[in-house]
Amino acid sequence: MQVGEFLFECLKNETITDIFGVPGDYNFSLLDQIERDGELNFVHCRNELNAGYAADGYARVKGIGALITTFGVGELSACNAIAGAYSESVPIIHIVGGPKAMLQTQHKLMHHTLLDGNFDTFKKVYEQITAYAAAITPENAGVEIPNAIAKARETKKPVYLTIPTDVVNATMTSRAENPQRKKTDKASLKEAVRMISTRLQTAERPIILPDVYAMHYGLGERVEELAQKMNVPFVTMMMGKGACDESLPNYAGFYCGQLGSNEAARQLVEHSDCVLAFGAVWNDYNTGLFTDTIDPLAVINVMPNYVQIGKTMYPNIIIDDMIDAFPTGDHSWTLPQQPVFPFDHQKTDDGTLSADGYYPQFQTMFQKRDIVVTESGTFAWGLAETRLKKGVTYITQGGWGAIGYALPAAFGACVAAPNRRVLLFTGEGSMQMNVQELSSMLEYGCKPIIFVLNNKGYTIEKYINTVKSTVYNNFPDWDYYQLLRVFRHEPFTVQVSSESELREAIAESEKKCLAQLCLIEMIADPMDVPQIIHRMHEQVMKMEHKHQGLRAFF
Amino acid sequence: MQVGEFLFECLKNETITDIFGVPGDYNFSLLDQIERDGELNFVHCRNELNAGYAADGYARVKGIGALITTFGVGELSACNAIAGAYSESVPIIHIVGGPKAMLQTQHKLMHHTLLDGNFDTFKKVYEQITAYAAAITPENAGVEIPNAIAKARETKKPVYLTIPTDVVNATMTSRAENPQRKKTDKASLKEAVRMISTRLQTAERPIILPDVYAMHYGLGERVEELAQKMNVPFVTMMMGKGACDESLPNYAGFYCGQLGSNEAARQLVEHSDCVLAFGAVWNDYNTGLFTDTIDPLAVINVMPNYVQIGKTMYPNIIIDDMIDAFPTGDHSWTLPQQPVFPFDHQKTDDGTLSADGYYPQFQTMFQKRDIVVTESGTFAWGLAETRLKKGVTYITQGGWGAIGYALPAAFGACVAAPNRRVLLFTGEGSMQMNVQELSSMLEYGCKPIIFVLNNKGYTIEKYINTVKSTVYNNFPDWDYYQLLRVFRHEPFTVQVSSESELREAIAESEKKCLAQLCLIEMIADPMDVPQIIHRMHEQVMKMEHKHQGLRAFF
Repeated sequence: MQVGEFLFECLKNETITDIFGVPGDYNFSLLDQIERDGELNFVHCRNELNAGYAADGYARVKGIGALITTFGVGELSACNAIAGAYSESVPIIHIVGGPKAMLQTQHKLMHHTLLDGNFDTFKKVYEQITAYAAAITPENAGVEIPNAIAKARETKKPVYLTIPTDVVNATMTSRAENPQRKKTDKASLKEAVRMISTRLQTAERPIILPDVYAMHYGLGERVEELAQKMNVPFVTMMMGKGACDESLPNYAGFYCGQLGSNEAARQLVEHSDCVLAFGAVWNDYNTGLFTDTIDPLAVINVMPNYVQIGKTMYPNIIIDDMIDAFPTGDHSWTLPQQPVFPFDHQKTDDGTLSADGYYPQFQTMFQKRDIVVTESGTFAWGLAETRLKKGVTYITQGGWGAIGYALPAAFGACVAAPNRRVLLFTGEGSMQMNVQELSSMLEYGCKPIIFVLNNKGYTIEKYINTVKSTVYNNFPDWDYYQLLRVFRHEPFTVQVSSESELREAIAESEKKCLAQLCLIEMIADPMDVPQIIHRMHEQVMKMEHKHQGLRAFF
Repeated sequence: MQVGEFLFECLKNETITDIFGVPGDYNFSLLDQIERDGELNFVHCRNELNAGYAADGYARVKGIGALITTFGVGELSACNAIAGAYSESVPIIHIVGGPKAMLQTQHKLMHHTLLDGNFDTFKKVYEQITAYAAAITPENAGVEIPNAIAKARETKKPVYLTIPTDVVNATMTSRAENPQRKKTDKASLKEAVRMISTRLQTAERPIILPDVYAMHYGLGERVEELAQKMNVPFVTMMMGKGACDESLPNYAGFYCGQLGSNEAARQLVEHSDCVLAFGAVWNDYNTGLFTDTIDPLAVINVMPNYVQIGKTMYPNIIIDDMIDAFPTGDHSWTLPQQPVFPFDHQKTDDGTLSADGYYPQFQTMFQKRDIVVTESGTFAWGLAETRLKKGVTYITQGGWGAIGYALPAAFGACVAAPNRRVLLFTGEGSMQMNVQELSSMLEYGCKPIIFVLNNKGYTIEKYINTVKSTVYNNFPDWDYYQLLRVFRHEPFTVQVSSESELREAIAESEKKCLAQLCLIEMIADPMDVPQIIHRMHEQVMKMEHKHQGLRAFF
């Protein structure tokens, strides 16, 4: 069997059917192999960063994704996307086609290198931002390829394989057994279960907190079941948004320290004597810029490979096994009454477009099984406070926060699930970063509904900067309406500047999106933001003051 | 003095007046400092990769460039540009704004990190692709900043400085003496001079070969003087194109092994008994995919820090000192008659647009002191064979070869030299990679003449791929004519598909470019290429055959 055949067989075994990338001379043999294969689909993106983001969006829908770039010039353009996937725990197999093995051995000065005769430089770059990096040979392919894929599956992190162009067509010289997966330490699990049971016996106000690892290990529904069985409410944080069904009566809202609008949710978390967290990460976004005040001793956090209870660590417990064995206690807790969620009420006066009005409209339009892709910036914070329907996949970068991510990620989501509706919420500043991927969406017949918030600048950055007079958060004004015509397609595009125009545009696009890509440009006041951003601004200014003028946070 | 003030004073001392970049929360304090400074100009690009390329183009005109990005999400998008600058020997100071020092010390889980508490990950990435990387503190700023800049100057490679946002406004605690520059070993220099003199005494057919280091150390004119004084011809290779004045009678043409069209130039180099190379790199592009047959014992190569004569190395000789001391011999050589250069003759029949016709048109339009920016792909090879006028700055990636480089590099060149004419030659596939930087060009009032070769695909890749039926080298068709209207400007745009239309469009744009950006879209046959690409294809097929079907080169 040839190395390339084996590689793509392995990817197909992972249910990967589409591989994103950009052609380049050193990856021709990989792309030719895909053409020969006939089952896999190479999705040609406009540049490598976008291809990486698209693979990330795809992976968040299908569980794992793949990317092909060329050596040096190609792979290094995708660093941001791969590091982002690491930060956000999204498994991507990044495959790089490299110069012929003999040329590498001879240290030839090839194009797409630093011209120093080294061919391992870029692998060293990727070692910093992936969970596993290997240079493939005919001898090691049988071991390294399955190991890398298993590592991606196990850690939910990206991995990196660099393959000389001629090795793709070389015959493999050996093939390993399937890689051993890590196993749970049963004694450790037993101890953890016992301790959690003990805690639950005395717990009066338990709360469930499903977060990023629960979501990316595909355990959201299992956590929902636990919540229902125990009759315990759950709240979501930024990174775990969408892990569980927010239409359930157990859903108590979005928690974000002092920044969130849902005071009841905050009380539930911060006054809880037993916080049952599943894969929670206590980063700045999840904690509302560290304005959370959760009692650390009350927290039980089920992580991919261990459980932490208060200050105690129970190592070597695989998250699936822990959830299987999770004790539900014999208490009968009572669900608190669900709060009125921040965007439950539609604004009745249809004036100028504003955050207070358009978020309720979005919440209303969400349907079951929608894929909602949200860009960093004000949308990421505002939409975090909407209530989602059952089966919605919610995609955002709640930790990495790269602007420009959402549009290509939405492309990846469209490819992963051609029969689901994809809603993309982005800003005009973000869209300028990688606007060309709209062309790929149109080329591949994707039909998302795209909301572009045009508020004439990086609005969120104006709120978190403590210096007022900056001009650098402004940028050129484009005619987004004309843009899609450049790509020679006739999508549905409309510009709205009032609540009623938005309402009409949504209604229209909900019909049109069966046949066309829809783009709704929302003209908004540069300083109009959801409430959560105002509280973020207050918090930043408070810290600034406390630190006597030295920049406190940003 | 504050760290930020000091940093920007150092950059101004290097004659940097413009810094390219993209704002992000962790670099606000840097950008605020630039605003306060008042002398420096922050050039806001549409994304970080483009900003890196623009800084590269700027550095090739002004000698050094600078780039500001934000932590993680920003800096990692610029990796390709910085590695390219390393490969091509272009000095760029890459400055990254990072999270507050205290947050780093506390290993806080901040956004734009891998959420593992590490803050040195991205510095480790950049250590692979820069000549110097430092994390700045108030204590080390006085030493590290001047050292990094000196290293960039000395090596012509990019360097990396990461600065926590609050350190920018912190007071420096010490300041070092100016960094010591490396000095020439006088004994080594004396030996080299003696050996070169000896060689010149018996040399019958000397030839001068100025290349990339001569160009980027700003020594092109000095090499010209040597050529004139010695009455010796010179040829250029891909990476050193533009180093010397090609209008001189000494200019003998473009050398590219078996691939070049100028047989006389090839004979001069390959039959020479004394090849006086200045900063030559023997990479695949320069050598015509290693089809060169230069006698290595005949080569004297003056490199930045050493001289190589045949197999012998003379270490620790600074290139400037070597050129100062370069012996010119007492021979009286005779200049060979200049050849007819490949594009000296205008085609007389004005039919369909084709490479045989449009390259002569370009050569004719070139003026003194033009800046010619050439994208990788067929243009880079075809234009390498044109003859340039005096004082032309020629910008291309003759080693790194990243597609998408030229457009932002041309933007950087426009900013560096607002009073010089900038001609950009790119392809439609390349332009799709980073089309948004056209918007920045328009926003900053740049008025280049842009030639977009629309040949419906990655034409060069179709020629170097040995498999014929590939579809992956095609991509979406755009309406480039409408594109500039999206950016809300009224540039001069025209589409041409015959030699006469191109001739008219050039004449028109030469007038209009005083007031407007001009874009000429050239509609060409997908497989129409200059002769050099046909020879490249033959070479690739020959090697393919020799290696019995195993991919030989690409």
